[in-house]
Amino acid sequence: MPETQNKQILLVSRPKGIPTTDNFQLVEQPMPVPAQGEALIRTLYLSVDPYMRGRMSDRKSYVPPYNLQEPIGGGAIGEVIESKTPELQTGDLVVGPTGWQTHAIVMPKQVRKIDPSIAPITTALGVLGMTGLTAYFGLLDIGQPKPNETVVVSGAAGAVGMVVGQIAKLKGCRVVGIAGSDNKINYLLNELKFDAAINYKTTTDLQEALQAACPNGIDVYFDNVGGEISDAALSLLNFQARIPVCGQISLYNQEEPDVGPRIQSQILISSAMMKGFIVGNYAERFPEGAAELARWVKEGSIKYQENIVEGFENTVQAFLGLFKGENLGKQLVKVSDQTK
Amino acid sequence: MPETQNKQILLVSRPKGIPTTDNFQLVEQPMPVPAQGEALIRTLYLSVDPYMRGRMSDRKSYVPPYNLQEPIGGGAIGEVIESKTPELQTGDLVVGPTGWQTHAIVMPKQVRKIDPSIAPITTALGVLGMTGLTAYFGLLDIGQPKPNETVVVSGAAGAVGMVVGQIAKLKGCRVVGIAGSDNKINYLLNELKFDAAINYKTTTDLQEALQAACPNGIDVYFDNVGGEISDAALSLLNFQARIPVCGQISLYNQEEPDVGPRIQSQILISSAMMKGFIVGNYAERFPEGAAELARWVKEGSIKYQENIVEGFENTVQAFLGLFKGENLGKQLVKVSDQTK
Repeated sequence: MPETQNKQILLVSRPKGIPTTDNFQLVEQPMPVPAQGEALIRTLYLSVDPYMRGRMSDRKSYVPPYNLQEPIGGGAIGEVIESKTPELQTGDLVVGPTGWQTHAIVMPKQVRKIDPSIAPITTALGVLGMTGLTAYFGLLDIGQPKPNETVVVSGAAGAVGMVVGQIAKLKGCRVVGIAGSDNKINYLLNELKFDAAINYKTTTDLQEALQAACPNGIDVYFDNVGGEISDAALSLLNFQARIPVCGQISLYNQEEPDVGPRIQSQILISSAMMKGFIVGNYAERFPEGAAELARWVKEGSIKYQENIVEGFENTVQAFLGLFKGENLGKQLVKVSDQTK
Repeated sequence: MPETQNKQILLVSRPKGIPTTDNFQLVEQPMPVPAQGEALIRTLYLSVDPYMRGRMSDRKSYVPPYNLQEPIGGGAIGEVIESKTPELQTGDLVVGPTGWQTHAIVMPKQVRKIDPSIAPITTALGVLGMTGLTAYFGLLDIGQPKPNETVVVSGAAGAVGMVVGQIAKLKGCRVVGIAGSDNKINYLLNELKFDAAINYKTTTDLQEALQAACPNGIDVYFDNVGGEISDAALSLLNFQARIPVCGQISLYNQEEPDVGPRIQSQILISSAMMKGFIVGNYAERFPEGAAELARWVKEGSIKYQENIVEGFENTVQAFLGLFKGENLGKQLVKVSDQTK
């Protein structure tokens, strides 16, 4: 039976604090038809990411806010099911910014073909996609880890964090992860061979715990979370420490202003450097990063973890789970099976 | 009459909050005698600087705390009055870290000879000394100003701030200064040709005033002061803004913890870079910076301002004045006249 409807999840109101299912609406639209030079793709997997929370608010950020009554934008993997461009063939697998919908019209330049011989195709949204590249450039370009330095990563069992920690291990660093469950801590220690890992939810004095885990201080603090976890890490910076600021997930749903110890004195006394970034700043160097990551994944020196929820209708729940700390590694939604 | 006593100002107790005269004691010691390889110098001018406040507390900072019962350390200009080393001749003028005392024993490698043909010798403690070098490296190495960018400097009428602003003008930037008196504002606008200057003490909404002064946002914020002034500036950062953190004078006497809006979200959404530094990090490049500064001063493209208090016994008052915002430019104490 040919597909006749495109399901989409729209943002229908802007969340205050933690988003709820009421902020979203699942709608069915007529199946779009590709014009000359375009192709129709069917979504196989889509990505739900913490940064999307920021775009649901109507304020300046590093990416523009989502519009109301439009589908949530984001990365997805699809299969070409109809093509009016020679650059894409029916059956091609592609990754692109098609968002929360079961089908999409794309132009060839908007998507990248996936080579399924390197690794499972889902990695194109994770370790071999924006997630992995975020870890790669944030850690290596900003963090500049050197052998025997101490690298601390918060959100360590998240999709970005676990790649950061593993690259730091490859670079010869002592790696300390901060995460929010014993399950995650065990994974970091036993599977990814982090040197230490701290469950911030069960640790009474995080600063003390970090100090114990970092007897030589902190040279790189890769910040995915912000808030009090970062306060603790920033108090232990070594001379000329580096702090890539990648995310602030602890704040995304916070309604009150984010107030805490100002950090400039710590930055000053340690001659430290803090730099915010988004992966798009490194677009020109994506081929370099993608090739390195693919090599590490193929040779088994970087492991990855995916948490795949089945069914397009469960997308919102999967997204909300990110803020409950449920996901180990990359959170994906499986939307449909690949043809044959 | 030969000099027989060395006067020193000792730190006798650690200040809590704003220092008072009780924290210091003026003592007389027997005149020290140079050993082989050393020289005796008589202090002509000494420097009082905000960073000294940090060293009066007993906590980790970028320089170690001063010891109690010892003279306050810092930069000074002296004349060699007795020498037991061929590298220094009686009558030589030198600058070095001899601190708050009327005489000192030095080894040649601890001091640098001053060439009085370039500019008045007092500039060796200011625009042609550590102060100018601090402005030079902080602005150019960390701030990296480009033509037509907007550079905001706090503490703009202080010794470092006014050099920062003038170098930024030389680099073709729009320069906005923040200072604390109308006298200072007038100086910045009329003498140094800043594009705008804001008196934070008489401005009710600093963020609004900054926004008006920076219609294209802020590309470089050179931070000398910290606190709420910095909060306002950091809310206006452009994409990939740079923030050299040079000082936090608003906090040095503060006893309560420095709490305010956490800045990581601003750093993140603007892909900004903040870096703390002390001038010593650039020691290898001092000759380059000193040559550039001397050229600019000689050709008149950088002006400087010195505020000279007469008399060693007024050193503590001159130091305390730094925190009342009394000084325009570099604060010095004249200790004695040059011979003949």
